[in-house]
Amino acid sequence: MNGAESLLRTLLANGIELCFMNPGTSEMQFVSALDRVPGMRGVLCLFEGVCSGAADGYARMAGKPAATLLHLGPGLGNSLANFHNARKAYSPVVNIVGEHSTQHLGHDAPLTADIEGFARPVSGWVRTLECAAAMGEATSAAVDAAIGPPGKVATLIVPADYSWSEAGDPALPVQRTAPALPTEQTIREVAALLRSGCPAGLLLGGSALHERGLRAAGRVRAATGVRLFANRNSGRMARGGDIPAGDRIPYFPEAAQALLAGFERLILVESKPPVSFFGYPGLRSTLAAPDCTFDTLSAIGENGSEALEWLASALGAPASPETPAAARPTLPCGEPLTAAAIGRTIGALVPEGVIFSDETVSCNEQIWPHLAGAPAHDHLPVTGGSIGQGLPVALGAALACPGRKVVSLEADGSAMYTLQSLWTMARERLDVTVVILANRRYRILDIEMKRTGAGKVGPQADRMLDLSDPAPDWVKLAEGFGVEAVRAGTADDFIREFGAAMRQTGPRVIEAVLD
Amino acid sequence: MNGAESLLRTLLANGIELCFMNPGTSEMQFVSALDRVPGMRGVLCLFEGVCSGAADGYARMAGKPAATLLHLGPGLGNSLANFHNARKAYSPVVNIVGEHSTQHLGHDAPLTADIEGFARPVSGWVRTLECAAAMGEATSAAVDAAIGPPGKVATLIVPADYSWSEAGDPALPVQRTAPALPTEQTIREVAALLRSGCPAGLLLGGSALHERGLRAAGRVRAATGVRLFANRNSGRMARGGDIPAGDRIPYFPEAAQALLAGFERLILVESKPPVSFFGYPGLRSTLAAPDCTFDTLSAIGENGSEALEWLASALGAPASPETPAAARPTLPCGEPLTAAAIGRTIGALVPEGVIFSDETVSCNEQIWPHLAGAPAHDHLPVTGGSIGQGLPVALGAALACPGRKVVSLEADGSAMYTLQSLWTMARERLDVTVVILANRRYRILDIEMKRTGAGKVGPQADRMLDLSDPAPDWVKLAEGFGVEAVRAGTADDFIREFGAAMRQTGPRVIEAVLD
Repeated sequence: MNGAESLLRTLLANGIELCFMNPGTSEMQFVSALDRVPGMRGVLCLFEGVCSGAADGYARMAGKPAATLLHLGPGLGNSLANFHNARKAYSPVVNIVGEHSTQHLGHDAPLTADIEGFARPVSGWVRTLECAAAMGEATSAAVDAAIGPPGKVATLIVPADYSWSEAGDPALPVQRTAPALPTEQTIREVAALLRSGCPAGLLLGGSALHERGLRAAGRVRAATGVRLFANRNSGRMARGGDIPAGDRIPYFPEAAQALLAGFERLILVESKPPVSFFGYPGLRSTLAAPDCTFDTLSAIGENGSEALEWLASALGAPASPETPAAARPTLPCGEPLTAAAIGRTIGALVPEGVIFSDETVSCNEQIWPHLAGAPAHDHLPVTGGSIGQGLPVALGAALACPGRKVVSLEADGSAMYTLQSLWTMARERLDVTVVILANRRYRILDIEMKRTGAGKVGPQADRMLDLSDPAPDWVKLAEGFGVEAVRAGTADDFIREFGAAMRQTGPRVIEAVLD
Repeated sequence: MNGAESLLRTLLANGIELCFMNPGTSEMQFVSALDRVPGMRGVLCLFEGVCSGAADGYARMAGKPAATLLHLGPGLGNSLANFHNARKAYSPVVNIVGEHSTQHLGHDAPLTADIEGFARPVSGWVRTLECAAAMGEATSAAVDAAIGPPGKVATLIVPADYSWSEAGDPALPVQRTAPALPTEQTIREVAALLRSGCPAGLLLGGSALHERGLRAAGRVRAATGVRLFANRNSGRMARGGDIPAGDRIPYFPEAAQALLAGFERLILVESKPPVSFFGYPGLRSTLAAPDCTFDTLSAIGENGSEALEWLASALGAPASPETPAAARPTLPCGEPLTAAAIGRTIGALVPEGVIFSDETVSCNEQIWPHLAGAPAHDHLPVTGGSIGQGLPVALGAALACPGRKVVSLEADGSAMYTLQSLWTMARERLDVTVVILANRRYRILDIEMKRTGAGKVGPQADRMLDLSDPAPDWVKLAEGFGVEAVRAGTADDFIREFGAAMRQTGPRVIEAVLD
């Protein structure tokens, strides 16, 4: 079998059965092999940043990697912003990048570039295949590296001739390592600390924010009164219904520092000590109290959810403490279309099990509280701060969870970076409702302009923040990609259109023009 | 003055007066400074790949750099594919990238990334600013590096606190180095070679393909009968009217090798020996005859156009040999809408001085011959093979040459990568006519699939090359960005709509659905 087949079969042997791709000449053998190797689903994306973001969203929900297939250095270049987010989400991705054939590489052809150099800043593992015979072994090593734990982007660069040459058998499946648990002593020490009455919080990330982890954290809270905090940049968080909720660390440092003031101990569960998103003149970047001591229950990549269950048992916590569900929000009938009105409508109307891909920016704080009143769901935030991930993550999540409704909450500025995602949603008939919050401005930058001391926004600066001349027409853009779309200008419009979207399946865009 | 002002003033002192930007928090001081530093024009782009491609197009036509302003590692990541093309075009660009403030950098915030690592594969010069006081000097060094010759992408990474701190005066303008000329001995040797009757060709690139260089090359040809060849990946080529034309090296190696067979000597003028775009099983990558000897009149970055003038004089060539203009093509009235029909219409109807940004792929060879019959114009091809450059290059060229009509020739697959360019064309009211050749397929890959020996396109593979399910609606996409658009389904439609576009100014998209 040739190299391309050996690679695909090795991926399949490891349960990797989906590949987001935007292939070119150097990857034609992989594309051709899709018809000879049953079981690998190719999903075409019209821009590589869609591939990388979709693989991130898929990994966050499926708990296993997808593959990506990209064309040479520039194709990889286009994927990097969303691989940055995947890296910060600890999402496993097996990233296959085609390279020129080896006999062509010395000639400095137009597309020749330093592919390893492009890959390194976002990849936890990079390798250029050395010969066709190594294809199975190298693919297996890429899978192993991607899975971790913690998950990583593992980039395997494959010269074209190794995909068309004889390559031998695929490799055997990778032996998985279970994520580590704390020692008994750590459990005893953390339990003693929590029983001591010292003002302490649990800062949760990774699997500790999945439903299982949060239910265990809720038991620990019931037994000890410890405060629960959620890392706002962790890849996935369960919420809503009767799932125990913690306080999400606020975006701006002043609010975060106020929330964490007085907590002398923070116990980290798959999270690092919290830091501000940006640095500002005269403000410190750390968010915990200056005299706070950090203890680690589970490091990143370890099994925080099981550690919390163990801790709960050690504390003799109740098996299922009652967690009152937040009230479902009321519909904003007859009101203006504000971000809060949108949040209330969504909180009121989404079905159980919905997945939110949330890339709202300046509107986030007005929407967030109202989603707590929704039935149990998963929330996928921007992990690495690189905008343009919301639509692709929604796409990947929808492919990972075909039975669940996905709601993509987008700012009109952010949605623009990877709007080509809409085409793949249409092609694959994915059940994604995209809500574009159109304020026709990079609104967050009005705030950041003041915060960085840059002063008043003059007419030149204003034009660099303004998206209203011309205002993008998201109904036409969506329809241009084959996705049904409507515009809402009042809360009543939005209630009607969002409700309709919840009752249908398939992709739909609602442009919500904010009041 | 603060660092941001010092940077802008240093750029202006060097004649850099345009900045393509997609700023974020770390760049707010630069945005704010636009209102205090008169003369710098900010052009907002909604995706960073538009910024980098536009800066490339601007540099190719203006002959001087624009600046780009990008947000941290991921913003730079989005720009890399088109910076790859700029690198291969030897286009000068001063690329400013914001970084976290220095006190924030140690905290591994979500957006923290290896910005230098992102920059290196595409930049000829990379530096992270060391202190605010060095701002003027570092900016000056960036300009110097960008200008070359040859031109480069020079990336200056600026921590946010250095832009808001006191930074002292801007630097003095950079002393420019004139591009080098050959020695007298080289001129004598090349002249002797051309007089010898040996089968020789001149392979032209860089400034040798600008009008001045081609007119000089035409004189050399008139005096010696030497054959003129054009590097197809050089950044800019004058053509049409009575401008002397050479043979463009064909894309596929078989045709290129046939064209160059029998040429024992190739004299390089701002070009390297020609190589195939891709490597294929059983084919060599070099295109010149295996026994060909290369002589260099001017290396890349040297002054090939003046060298050719000198050579022409040394040969006693006529001052203005007659170059018969190619006949203007006839309009394809009543014919089906093929790529050739589109080429004929465009060749027949464009005004003198038009600038073509050409990113057609599988249709290129059918269009190319007919553009020769257009009046004198400039042609900007894809230099580095990274698709998604055509629309941004058109945008940048239009800003560099406000009085000239720009025609952007796009494949529907290629146009998709940076379609956000259309918004900036609308905002800046640029005189760009975009022709989308819609075959609703990555058609070139059907050809490359066979050429790489990947065999028959099965149903799975077919779906990875197909863009018809759903077919993007380019009229709606363009209108969604505020650009007037029409669809043409017959040659008569296209003649009417393209003719109308030539008579108006401002951006317009014509989706030409190929027969």
